[in-house]
Amino acid sequence: MALTVPLHGVIPPVCTPLDPHGEVDTASLTRLVSHLLDAGVHGLFALGSSGETAYLTNHQRATVLETVVTAAGGRVPVLAGVIDTTTARVLEHARTAIALGADALVATAPFYTRTHPREIAAHFRHLRTATGHPLIAYDIPVSVPSRLSPALVRELAEEGTLIGLKDSSGDDGTLRRLLVALGGRSARRTGPAPDFAVLTGSELTADAALLAGADGVVPGLGNVDPAGYVRLYGAARAGDWPRAAAEQERLVALFDLTDTGPESEMGRSSSALGGFKAALELLGVIDHRATALPQLPLGEKSLAEVGRRLSEAGLRPTG
Amino acid sequence: MALTVPLHGVIPPVCTPLDPHGEVDTASLTRLVSHLLDAGVHGLFALGSSGETAYLTNHQRATVLETVVTAAGGRVPVLAGVIDTTTARVLEHARTAIALGADALVATAPFYTRTHPREIAAHFRHLRTATGHPLIAYDIPVSVPSRLSPALVRELAEEGTLIGLKDSSGDDGTLRRLLVALGGRSARRTGPAPDFAVLTGSELTADAALLAGADGVVPGLGNVDPAGYVRLYGAARAGDWPRAAAEQERLVALFDLTDTGPESEMGRSSSALGGFKAALELLGVIDHRATALPQLPLGEKSLAEVGRRLSEAGLRPTG
Amino acid sequence: MALTVPLHGVIPPVCTPLDPHGEVDTASLTRLVSHLLDAGVHGLFALGSSGETAYLTNHQRATVLETVVTAAGGRVPVLAGVIDTTTARVLEHARTAIALGADALVATAPFYTRTHPREIAAHFRHLRTATGHPLIAYDIPVSVPSRLSPALVRELAEEGTLIGLKDSSGDDGTLRRLLVALGGRSARRTGPAPDFAVLTGSELTADAALLAGADGVVPGLGNVDPAGYVRLYGAARAGDWPRAAAEQERLVALFDLTDTGPESEMGRSSSALGGFKAALELLGVIDHRATALPQLPLGEKSLAEVGRRLSEAGLRPTG
Amino acid sequence: MALTVPLHGVIPPVCTPLDPHGEVDTASLTRLVSHLLDAGVHGLFALGSSGETAYLTNHQRATVLETVVTAAGGRVPVLAGVIDTTTARVLEHARTAIALGADALVATAPFYTRTHPREIAAHFRHLRTATGHPLIAYDIPVSVPSRLSPALVRELAEEGTLIGLKDSSGDDGTLRRLLVALGGRSARRTGPAPDFAVLTGSELTADAALLAGADGVVPGLGNVDPAGYVRLYGAARAGDWPRAAAEQERLVALFDLTDTGPESEMGRSSSALGGFKAALELLGVIDHRATALPQLPLGEKSLAEVGRRLSEAGLRPTG
Repeated sequence: MALTVPLHGVIPPVCTPLDPHGEVDTASLTRLVSHLLDAGVHGLFALGSSGETAYLTNHQRATVLETVVTAAGGRVPVLAGVIDTTTARVLEHARTAIALGADALVATAPFYTRTHPREIAAHFRHLRTATGHPLIAYDIPVSVPSRLSPALVRELAEEGTLIGLKDSSGDDGTLRRLLVALGGRSARRTGPAPDFAVLTGSELTADAALLAGADGVVPGLGNVDPAGYVRLYGAARAGDWPRAAAEQERLVALFDLTDTGPESEMGRSSSALGGFKAALELLGVIDHRATALPQLPLGEKSLAEVGRRLSEAGLRPTG
Repeated sequence: MALTVPLHGVIPPVCTPLDPHGEVDTASLTRLVSHLLDAGVHGLFALGSSGETAYLTNHQRATVLETVVTAAGGRVPVLAGVIDTTTARVLEHARTAIALGADALVATAPFYTRTHPREIAAHFRHLRTATGHPLIAYDIPVSVPSRLSPALVRELAEEGTLIGLKDSSGDDGTLRRLLVALGGRSARRTGPAPDFAVLTGSELTADAALLAGADGVVPGLGNVDPAGYVRLYGAARAGDWPRAAAEQERLVALFDLTDTGPESEMGRSSSALGGFKAALELLGVIDHRATALPQLPLGEKSLAEVGRRLSEAGLRPTG
Repeated sequence: MALTVPLHGVIPPVCTPLDPHGEVDTASLTRLVSHLLDAGVHGLFALGSSGETAYLTNHQRATVLETVVTAAGGRVPVLAGVIDTTTARVLEHARTAIALGADALVATAPFYTRTHPREIAAHFRHLRTATGHPLIAYDIPVSVPSRLSPALVRELAEEGTLIGLKDSSGDDGTLRRLLVALGGRSARRTGPAPDFAVLTGSELTADAALLAGADGVVPGLGNVDPAGYVRLYGAARAGDWPRAAAEQERLVALFDLTDTGPESEMGRSSSALGGFKAALELLGVIDHRATALPQLPLGEKSLAEVGRRLSEAGLRPTG
Repeated sequence: MALTVPLHGVIPPVCTPLDPHGEVDTASLTRLVSHLLDAGVHGLFALGSSGETAYLTNHQRATVLETVVTAAGGRVPVLAGVIDTTTARVLEHARTAIALGADALVATAPFYTRTHPREIAAHFRHLRTATGHPLIAYDIPVSVPSRLSPALVRELAEEGTLIGLKDSSGDDGTLRRLLVALGGRSARRTGPAPDFAVLTGSELTADAALLAGADGVVPGLGNVDPAGYVRLYGAARAGDWPRAAAEQERLVALFDLTDTGPESEMGRSSSALGGFKAALELLGVIDHRATALPQLPLGEKSLAEVGRRLSEAGLRPTG
């Protein structure tokens, strides 16, 4: 599909269901995309951090993107993560993603290496020039320590290198400074980068980001409760902030399902990804809650807790 | 004054004007308190980070608190920072602050040392027991790396150790989890800690924090434009979120006055504190913009930029 | 070649010469390997951080390894870095490396993701089991924040998962604790993991690491002055510590050639990698000093400084 | 006593024994000083991090310093920590320390605040000018994130602001660069700062630091086994590096007594300080192993482990 800019709305970072052998479960993935589209999401972000992209081989990544593009069927834009350490490697993912039908590319700053802001700018410019494809920067300091400053993002937005930012920094104050620099709530479309989209990955403060003028939200938790985020977004668009905030509060409580893995046994991201997938299995959307190697699986106690959170949030029958 | 709980409203962390010899300029400080009270603030936080407390001797700290308490004259509660590395040292500041009339104490977790959450809990419990005075925890990871988790804060709130949290983490997602754990927007007063106040120090997302259910805001920038934050708070209380957000945007733009110090020459906090004080001097509130040793002063170019920001924000005549 | 354990000696992390188009310059790489072998190094580490592995496509990585293995001609063991984010991706690199003739694999803990020590152990065990090939762990916190604790390394060494550690942590105290836990200077070969090799990547304290009982050194600067590190190693093996230290001091001074890139313009790793390559070009070992995208090149002033450092270290005629 | 420069030898950071009420136990402290002097240490560092200075009130700090100066009786120089957040506060401690007879002052960069290198330089210069007393810089990034670069230290050393550095960074590579910049092993006394002393706080790599040309060592573990460090230093001075390394290995094994506190219950520094004090109590040097609030005490299991470590190191009868 031709991409309409600026991007907006609820664009979940689609989880990648795996079978017990660690291979991509395309049937479950197709059902997950339907689950999201049926809820009314406005786009799909395949191969993001919640999609366990860092755990997938290139072949698996291609399978995922192909499946999502096919399942989306042109109804919403598909953004594709092109996550790798530096320019040349990212560029290879980008070419594959374009060939497979991605509407836009989502790239981080280089990681593993230590990179200067001027080099980060060169990285994005090279990606844009070499592909000619719509490009979104991804700021996720928990994975990529090199931050993208508001000044850098604005420069790349104004010159047309970027069509958007996916901000997973959790640093809403800095995000606010960027939004104001781009014109603020009311003047964004006549500001220095009128087609530039600011998307927040902070699923816990989506209402706040929308109040601040963000265009959309990319919530990992949106895999589990896409309808909740669509309602939140709708309330925000209608200017009903108390309703948006109430919906956000329900989702914040639901987010506790990412915390059930015992800290003494597994990483924080294994617990969160495991929680999303356990919830999707319990909801009947995917067949297996398996996460990729070397993540450890959630235990029975954690699973029961995930179930309780779903019930408390009204997503499945209690008891 | 008898402290009414929960605390609420705009409670600026009062700057500490200095004379050219580095001594506390009590006349300027008294004028600054009037500037804040005239704007309608709901409380004063003396000896916080914006008050350069870490730069003041014990004698200077006492002078500051005495001056602020006197100038406040019981019209609003005065919170006093008791910033030091560990329990015994904090306790000495606490006793002085109580003697000088502080209505509540604001303490961080220990710093310089590495402290376990269980030890942080012991720290706050000892401070509360030993003083019997209302106690507020201060989460400011840029200065004190040991974070205060929502679980820890809730526990200390429920048991009555703390009457509030001043959150300067910039981590609005974690703050939201705490607010929801305490009952959320609508059920805070019937929740597990009904008299507990959540105050945000994030001057760039005060509207968001209030939408999320925070009770008040402690904005360093509120020294410069207290009326702006009072309007923002009023709009939020009235449920007029677009107006609150518009006021916030103006304040975000004004916040650029903290950025004028050249990165190659001075620290980020020197630039921010220097910016606040330069603005207060330009507005005629204080006599000298001097900051404490070893902070370097802002240069002429920076000063001119601070002036421009004030004009753009409507706080002084253009040009 | 059949790998003789424990590994030992000087094993430089081979730089990857590029042509002006960013492709691997195999002729220069072959000359670089000769330069190293002629100096008497005891092994080669292809595709490490100094080899710009994070910047190379899979195809380029294969070209590099093939070239190094061919040039080495079985005279010394060739270690191959298999640097990628997680298990499945690392495993693909491992299979290629084995097919191309690598004698041992060098893998980090997962990165981009946040991984628990138990998951890191699972990662190395899976790599070992799936390949059956000798495996070396690579601790490089500047790139991979998840540290490898002495307890974890010892466990993986004792059980036979690892044949070595490449320690680029710069944390010589923790390294010393590992060495002592493995038996110390005198009892390593009768300790809990007699065939396990401890290799330091700290090119500035190689003498100290050898005094502490390390088996070898993997110095990036060894590309430029392999003979210096071979002399240092020889002096240490002969127990002539003052001579080892004197050689180390000369190399510490030479290391200043990594610092010539202006901080305001380029990243620290670009400056270091650019410095190594500029020196190799000036010494006539490689044809081009080009570094991979998006690294910025060193300017003329930096080049002159690199030349001065080479002269001061006695590696080229003065003036 | 008149301070002889450069400082050198073993200069333990003296622990501060407390009684069960948390007050300074001067009798135990006096015995501890004798324990150190009897072992042949070359100086004493009172009020350092191992002395729990961050936990002591100003009154307690004065008691400590007075006791140490008296007990030292002019036989070795007494260095005094003047640990506080910024210049004015440090200066007050400095004046007290000079009045109480400290031979030199040991100060960190500012903390709690974020400080630019130029401001850190101003801090040390002001302290030096205002006191006229010998000043040593203390680099301890675990407590004070602002690092002291080799370039900054060299500048302050050459101009006479500093007479020494206490390096507790654990970053031996950077320390080596400083040592080489100051002239290296052989030319330090004719280098740019001939009277400047480099003291390492890394008790696990003291042999390496001495091989690199450091003048002395400030080991926390030296409270427990001062004779061991004196032997290590003596072997190093005699050029017997294998003996120095063997002694170091025994001390590295002994250092495990800092690790007995369970991570789930107490901070790393509580475990280390508690371990030192438990060992001193078991050795009969001090009366109580109490640590200051809010540190939690070691449990019985930890105590037994400390005892085992002492026995294994030959410091007390087995069993």
